[in-house]
Amino acid sequence: MGTDSEALVEAVRSGDRRALAQAITLIESTRESDREAAVRLLALAAPHAKHDTLRIGISGVPGVGKSTFIEAFGNTVIDRGRRVAVLTVDPSSALSGGSILGDKTRMENLSRRPEAYIRPSPAGTTLGGVTGRTREAIVLCEAAGFDVIIVETVGVGQSETAVAGMTDMFALLVLPSGGDELQGIKRGIMELADLIVVNKADGELKSAADRAAADYSNALRYLRSRTPQWQAPVKTCSALTGVGIEMVWDTVLEYWRKFSASSAQSSRRSDQARAWMWAETSDGLVAALKRHPNVRGRVAQLEAAVTAGTLSPTVAAQELLKAFLGDSESKIT
Amino acid sequence: MGTDSEALVEAVRSGDRRALAQAITLIESTRESDREAAVRLLALAAPHAKHDTLRIGISGVPGVGKSTFIEAFGNTVIDRGRRVAVLTVDPSSALSGGSILGDKTRMENLSRRPEAYIRPSPAGTTLGGVTGRTREAIVLCEAAGFDVIIVETVGVGQSETAVAGMTDMFALLVLPSGGDELQGIKRGIMELADLIVVNKADGELKSAADRAAADYSNALRYLRSRTPQWQAPVKTCSALTGVGIEMVWDTVLEYWRKFSASSAQSSRRSDQARAWMWAETSDGLVAALKRHPNVRGRVAQLEAAVTAGTLSPTVAAQELLKAFLGDSESKIT
Repeated sequence: MGTDSEALVEAVRSGDRRALAQAITLIESTRESDREAAVRLLALAAPHAKHDTLRIGISGVPGVGKSTFIEAFGNTVIDRGRRVAVLTVDPSSALSGGSILGDKTRMENLSRRPEAYIRPSPAGTTLGGVTGRTREAIVLCEAAGFDVIIVETVGVGQSETAVAGMTDMFALLVLPSGGDELQGIKRGIMELADLIVVNKADGELKSAADRAAADYSNALRYLRSRTPQWQAPVKTCSALTGVGIEMVWDTVLEYWRKFSASSAQSSRRSDQARAWMWAETSDGLVAALKRHPNVRGRVAQLEAAVTAGTLSPTVAAQELLKAFLGDSESKIT
Repeated sequence: MGTDSEALVEAVRSGDRRALAQAITLIESTRESDREAAVRLLALAAPHAKHDTLRIGISGVPGVGKSTFIEAFGNTVIDRGRRVAVLTVDPSSALSGGSILGDKTRMENLSRRPEAYIRPSPAGTTLGGVTGRTREAIVLCEAAGFDVIIVETVGVGQSETAVAGMTDMFALLVLPSGGDELQGIKRGIMELADLIVVNKADGELKSAADRAAADYSNALRYLRSRTPQWQAPVKTCSALTGVGIEMVWDTVLEYWRKFSASSAQSSRRSDQARAWMWAETSDGLVAALKRHPNVRGRVAQLEAAVTAGTLSPTVAAQELLKAFLGDSESKIT
């Protein structure tokens, strides 16, 4: 098995896209034996991951033209000399299954280019599962030598926060409608943005897009910027005609050049990695607790009493800890 | 010990403020033996807690006049026939110690009224510790029959989110300066607000306060409201002269009447209680892991490798889990 992992990591590093796909499938697997192999694989791959990459999160509500934009944008990135990987975080696809099929047929143009790699969301997992595995997939793409890692997500709130927590830069794609309609954007999402792109700035919508851009610029004035020394710009483009896409890339490049060698970015990545380690540890502990025979039968009853307000959450937590760890280990201090 | 807890809970329920102070001191204690007594106390008190209370979080940057406002507001609440408890969450006081002394001398007028109870922040604890214990203090105040529980916090970002997560309504107190200066407000804080109060609307600042109120109203248009079917209003007042305080209370009362019997509020409280139970459980597990002799010596080294990017966080988490739980229990699935 050890040799298998080594061979797979070698193949990934050599730029073999099929090997990369196989490696990501392995880390996405929920089978226990696969998980052990995945941990070995990650242990071997991490030291070889490219460090001077740009991890960029791209979000936007359904209908904003995310696929078309990422295809146009990705092609521009490649034309300008970089290799690009696209990963998607879409917890809804786990339920509907619909966008999985969609992923296969979209971005056809981009997916045919040897400098690109496109990976749809894994099916049948929770948001936590999807994002945990996406973090690992980023590292595998970096071990495969990709320069720009795009993590795409849909506008459902929680997943944006998760994606912002695993990327260097976060871009929000919006429709050319402004003013009161800005309210439609989920609370807190705009605050995550390092860049806002008004898509569909073409034809009859051109002037609406310009007005929307002004509205968004105005709204951003009320928000503190996510990244110190970077005021999130608002750009307009048409992913359909390609107008403005180069300008978006220039803005991303400006950000990348400004922060790639900065201590701000390296400390953000360090913080993200440390937080990820503790989140995985904490998730693993809670999962082990929930599996424990002394705990399993009691969770529902304790939760019911806690939500009814008749049992203090602290007391319930203490009972769960005692049941799992035994008396000596379970002190909350 | 069991009888002691029962007697203390009885005294708290009878409205004995000294007993309430003693009970809160017990739950704030970090001594292990006190913790056990505190858990017993909470188990006894929770079923007797008043349910039709309003838990209101009040936040604002230093200098906005929070103490003066809460004193004037608290007096109005009492004049209108309700009993009010004030708890503070101030992680900075744990460091500086300064505001502890300040708490004793401020709100003098309010603290002398029998219908009021004021409790400063516990010293020497982390944000997590403060907020965990504050949640418990809320329940004790409700067992003591208080109607309105004010949880006060300073504008440091994390504590606001924590306080919003333990209250029904969240009010933000701001200075009479608007426009670009709105940027000074921490990211995300304004989005937590169910009510914005521009304080110091008196003398020369009266018209500035009106302009600020208009600016805040405008800014709020870009944010989705925290509570469905409630558009956060912006009010002006002067805690110094008392002008506008009654109007703030009327607004709070309107909110309370609208939501106190609603399923939205009861499900928010249930969600908060469930989240608190799991947060305490998870914190307790991580604390037990960190204390474990097999783990203690390795955390620093694993964190260093993870932040340097040479070790995958997943692999590090797996090692921590194995060290703590042993091979059989530590599978991340």
